[in-house]
Amino acid sequence: MERVCFRLKLRPDLLDEYVARHQAVWPEMLAALSATGWHNYSLFLDRADCTLVGYFETPNLQAALDGMAATEVNARWQGEMKRYFVELDGRQPDEGFVQLERVMYLP
Amino acid sequence: MERVCFRLKLRPDLLDEYVARHQAVWPEMLAALSATGWHNYSLFLDRADCTLVGYFETPNLQAALDGMAATEVNARWQGEMKRYFVELDGRQPDEGFVQLERVMYLP
Repeated sequence: MERVCFRLKLRPDLLDEYVARHQAVWPEMLAALSATGWHNYSLFLDRADCTLVGYFETPNLQAALDGMAATEVNARWQGEMKRYFVELDGRQPDEGFVQLERVMYLP
Repeated sequence: MERVCFRLKLRPDLLDEYVARHQAVWPEMLAALSATGWHNYSLFLDRADCTLVGYFETPNLQAALDGMAATEVNARWQGEMKRYFVELDGRQPDEGFVQLERVMYLP
């Protein structure tokens, strides 16, 4: 399993709304993530500067990204999520994330 | 298992040295982490602004922090790591980390 970490920036005025939306992610969105290889997936927030950090594990990152990109539910979900982010330059949130470099792995 | 995510800021001029040190973490440090409940532990780096992100899973966060704090090897390791960080205000790296808020969990 590859361990993947990414960062995005949220809009300060929409932080609480973003968090609330994630207490009720659509079941079909969660099912699509699991089916396309997004395992042990968490999102974390640093309110100090509105940084969102994602972490997940996947057998194949490109397959996980391509798999989700091919689903209809992902297009709908990312379309609704787009307004919560800054600095996406017109991309969908799942296309704009910055993947972090791996420094250390411990089992 | 609780999933924990934290952030620290590294010194830009010492990024490469920090990364290199983590290709050879002392075996006794890794053993102490495992023994005190730091599981599935990764460190990730965003060179854009020298942000270090840590992720690990633990049955009990306070026990994991207290357990490591009580080891001799941790004091030695954190003492050597301190110079790579900024904004610690005199604390050890393992005392200065900012824990991020959990937004979403997917199995």
